[in-house]
Amino acid sequence: MPTYKAPLRDIRFLINELFDYPAHYKSLYNGKDVDTDTIEMILEGAADFCENVLSPLYQSGDLEGCHFADGEVTTPKGYKEAYQQFVEGGWQGLSYPEIYGGQNLPMSLNIVKSEMMGTANWPFTMYPGLSMGCMNTIIQFGTEQQKNLYMPHLVAGTWSGTMCLTEPQCGTDLGQVKSKAEPNADGSYRITGTKIFISAGEQDLTENIIHIVLARLPDAPAGTRGISLFIVPKFIPTADGQIGERNSVSCGSIEHKMGIRASATAVLNFDAATGYLIGAPNKGLHAMFTFMNTARIGTAVQGIAHAELSYQGALPYAKERGSMRALSGKKDPEKVADAIIHHADVRRMLLTQKAIAEGGRAMIYYAAQIADKMTDALAQGDQAKFDEYDDKLGFYTPILKGFLTEMGLEAANLGVQVFGGHGYIAEHGMEQIVRDARIATLYEGTTGVQALDLIGRKVLLSSKGKVVREYTADILKFCGRHARNKYMRRFAWDLTKICAQWNALTVRIMLAARKDRDIVSSASVDFLMFSGYAMMAYFWAQQAAVASEHLEAGTGHETPEFYKAKIKVADFYFERLLPRAQGHAEAMVNPSRTLTSLPAEHFSFDY
Amino acid sequence: MPTYKAPLRDIRFLINELFDYPAHYKSLYNGKDVDTDTIEMILEGAADFCENVLSPLYQSGDLEGCHFADGEVTTPKGYKEAYQQFVEGGWQGLSYPEIYGGQNLPMSLNIVKSEMMGTANWPFTMYPGLSMGCMNTIIQFGTEQQKNLYMPHLVAGTWSGTMCLTEPQCGTDLGQVKSKAEPNADGSYRITGTKIFISAGEQDLTENIIHIVLARLPDAPAGTRGISLFIVPKFIPTADGQIGERNSVSCGSIEHKMGIRASATAVLNFDAATGYLIGAPNKGLHAMFTFMNTARIGTAVQGIAHAELSYQGALPYAKERGSMRALSGKKDPEKVADAIIHHADVRRMLLTQKAIAEGGRAMIYYAAQIADKMTDALAQGDQAKFDEYDDKLGFYTPILKGFLTEMGLEAANLGVQVFGGHGYIAEHGMEQIVRDARIATLYEGTTGVQALDLIGRKVLLSSKGKVVREYTADILKFCGRHARNKYMRRFAWDLTKICAQWNALTVRIMLAARKDRDIVSSASVDFLMFSGYAMMAYFWAQQAAVASEHLEAGTGHETPEFYKAKIKVADFYFERLLPRAQGHAEAMVNPSRTLTSLPAEHFSFDY
Repeated sequence: MPTYKAPLRDIRFLINELFDYPAHYKSLYNGKDVDTDTIEMILEGAADFCENVLSPLYQSGDLEGCHFADGEVTTPKGYKEAYQQFVEGGWQGLSYPEIYGGQNLPMSLNIVKSEMMGTANWPFTMYPGLSMGCMNTIIQFGTEQQKNLYMPHLVAGTWSGTMCLTEPQCGTDLGQVKSKAEPNADGSYRITGTKIFISAGEQDLTENIIHIVLARLPDAPAGTRGISLFIVPKFIPTADGQIGERNSVSCGSIEHKMGIRASATAVLNFDAATGYLIGAPNKGLHAMFTFMNTARIGTAVQGIAHAELSYQGALPYAKERGSMRALSGKKDPEKVADAIIHHADVRRMLLTQKAIAEGGRAMIYYAAQIADKMTDALAQGDQAKFDEYDDKLGFYTPILKGFLTEMGLEAANLGVQVFGGHGYIAEHGMEQIVRDARIATLYEGTTGVQALDLIGRKVLLSSKGKVVREYTADILKFCGRHARNKYMRRFAWDLTKICAQWNALTVRIMLAARKDRDIVSSASVDFLMFSGYAMMAYFWAQQAAVASEHLEAGTGHETPEFYKAKIKVADFYFERLLPRAQGHAEAMVNPSRTLTSLPAEHFSFDY
Repeated sequence: MPTYKAPLRDIRFLINELFDYPAHYKSLYNGKDVDTDTIEMILEGAADFCENVLSPLYQSGDLEGCHFADGEVTTPKGYKEAYQQFVEGGWQGLSYPEIYGGQNLPMSLNIVKSEMMGTANWPFTMYPGLSMGCMNTIIQFGTEQQKNLYMPHLVAGTWSGTMCLTEPQCGTDLGQVKSKAEPNADGSYRITGTKIFISAGEQDLTENIIHIVLARLPDAPAGTRGISLFIVPKFIPTADGQIGERNSVSCGSIEHKMGIRASATAVLNFDAATGYLIGAPNKGLHAMFTFMNTARIGTAVQGIAHAELSYQGALPYAKERGSMRALSGKKDPEKVADAIIHHADVRRMLLTQKAIAEGGRAMIYYAAQIADKMTDALAQGDQAKFDEYDDKLGFYTPILKGFLTEMGLEAANLGVQVFGGHGYIAEHGMEQIVRDARIATLYEGTTGVQALDLIGRKVLLSSKGKVVREYTADILKFCGRHARNKYMRRFAWDLTKICAQWNALTVRIMLAARKDRDIVSSASVDFLMFSGYAMMAYFWAQQAAVASEHLEAGTGHETPEFYKAKIKVADFYFERLLPRAQGHAEAMVNPSRTLTSLPAEHFSFDY
């Protein structure tokens, strides 16, 4: 069973050496006082909590699962106590304003914390995680009164929040939402409808649960233009923020799921429950989209969390388990067999996990800086800047969420594979990681939805390919700077080629789409995966660049071995994983008719 | 929840039109009387049993799992009755000799039956499935007395058998086996040791369980050359084949597994249990290898079984679930949204499943014919012929087992993906298929072991690449025959290219391996996957060839729509899946040092 150990050396390498968070923080309204000591305090505090409190509950929580009886959910043994420690540590308010009791630290530090927590225990982390969607909604669209009423409790973590979007008939296609909101005389609304798949929708960790609910006002336009947002508290707070009357929202059941079994997924029945409009009427979906980019980084983190945890399980096993002899001769001659880490194919699996975990971490930590800048622009009231960064992040998020969760699932499966048959046995804890990782490509927009968002909305519709041109121009500048360095030459060359190809593919699909609309869908997932491989290549090259600079100059906080390993893993990525992009490139340019021309009734002649 | 429907039209297309089993059977000693009517009787009988008896127990068996108490295993509700029907139907003896009560039908029919059973309910099918390994051992290496004592019960299915290879310290590396066998005065042996991961090692379905156990004689050489095989019955039969004394082999526990939860995986403790040597002393591993090829086809079937079942679940859901509108315009204008089967990306997922299931089925049904010929050669005492076919099958089996189980897992995951969030919920039955499919790349030799068997043993060591040269020569002949057909032109061209590449890669790795021994391991899984994609392309082209011939001549048993669909799926395969081979080609030729040069202690600096 993997026990989580926070990879602080890798995290510090990214924070201090690759991205220089301390310098970046100086430019932020809420980062001026965040020095290296503050960062270290957060890192070490989070590591301690994750390693000693959350990690030990990961397997037991899965075994026990959540209990449901009479509308009440009981979380697994130890969850309440751990959550209490989470609240006492002030972890929920890390990046929320001080006026609500938070610590007002930059969002990126919150993402680093979430990564550690999610790696140690993803199902636990979902309880406070969902609350952030609720807090972001209230902080951005709530009235002063709403903010003052809810935020202090939510920031403290003594209350939690949810996002109630999905209904039985619709998930992705929220235009089909049926839940209705009817006005009361006092300005509140009666909310009626059924919401499903509500993570943390009911639990025994917090005093109150604040649901953000998508519903329709009377006479709202059909489809997505007729959806409004409502705050529906489990207990209606009194004016002074105390727990008041129980609202008529009830948990009908919780789902039996493949994984994340310690995280309660609720069916919620709203039966003329009292709700409060938040934001403009009929603009609910638009409001949701304004912070979808930041929210999706949170899910992208799951990809690297499970890659990391599975690697932490597989690596010691590969060093310990002896089987056969390496093809190039005995490596552990004193033993009856060589440790399997000496087999090249086992190394291929381990290095794939490592390349995904560390490459993905770099991608996320970079995106987190953009999120910091967005928050900064918002605080400064600079809408133009906000939009600029939002556009920038909008290119990253579908790639991060879509690509990293697919890769995280692969990495988790490789962890099982390193264990051989033992990986299939529950007690070793490796198969749980696969089951937990499996949700990541489904919720918060499936991989297909991310792919369509990327190619349809972000690349073609709103930028006509400009976003790819600009991004690759940045990469090419990087290549120019490093082309003559001995370590970097091959990376620069491969990146140059893949940038040219990325642009060519974008143009080709853009032109094809004029006559063949379906190609946007038929090419979408291959385009997403191609983009992901290309982007991760850039982040591996950046890590190698910093490592090689330190190696050559004899500088840096780390040992030469650390930097050499970074370069070797970058080599591995370019030689072994990046080539997969070619299969996606070749597949995506084919016309859509291969997919669309088979009549639906001819998909099977037997059933 | 997918309910199994036997895909008889596809099965008949392969049996009657692509491979012409009836004609093939005429050449076999045990096939002369097998006409179309016999085949039909088997197909329909098996379909009926699978659809009506096995399929309904698939989900309930997973939910309930197996029970263990005081050394006894209780299988899930309904298993005993279903097994009874299996015995009464004479299904176990389908391909075993009449002298032991079997029906002596060709092995290929048994494989078709196993595919149906495995698709309907893989965990159930493992109970009689493991018995075949035991029967094959006894029939090939047992004395007349041993055959007469055990085979009638095993063929009837009233007794079952297991293969006891794995021990806690070793699975793949059987040279580490420690279990020991000490001679008794009466010629029997005392077997002592612990065996793990014994599928069907204990159950309540049969009167007796006959274990085939790998153990060491006193003074046996170390390693693989000192392993012998022993028959260790749970109850020692009396001379006339009745149930006798309980042997001292006991089930210590059963494993808690990710999937196949209705299939008991036992830890067996042999405590000076009475065993009988079978085959020559110290030649046990060699004996195991003589029928490993046929045994591995049985596991390869799991790949297509789960692809098929998951497709059977995903297809109706995709036709029914409405979400958004197709990019090329409304497809279900009368409804609030289009069925998701109208989205090109959903079709990509469905067609991937279908291409894997039907392409893999063709590969297996072809290999099954070689297995028929092996059995025939054995029956005729023609060792040279047997060896020839064994070599031929030896090239197929690692590809079938390694590639098809990996692809089956992908297909099962795609089935979940088509369902979106609903795929993650247990009640829909889609996630169970993923959990059940996950074992397939682990047992009977992991994908890595198959890959090393393919490139190391089959391609390089024993044939210096000849096996690839000969196989691709066959494909090129096929291309020559079809190059001018309008449907076939592009397939012939793509196949020609991939054959050239396959040979070039083989030579390149062979040459590289002279100086870089580890490249055989570092290239192995990419070589396996490349070979799988190439081989499946050939089988899709063959299906398209038959379909196009019938379409042009207006012949065949099927409708034109059926044949057109075959050609369209072949198109899909060549345009969308075959391109992945390029990523594998590019990756495998890189020198092994990218994998081997990172010191084991530098795989992490944090743990």
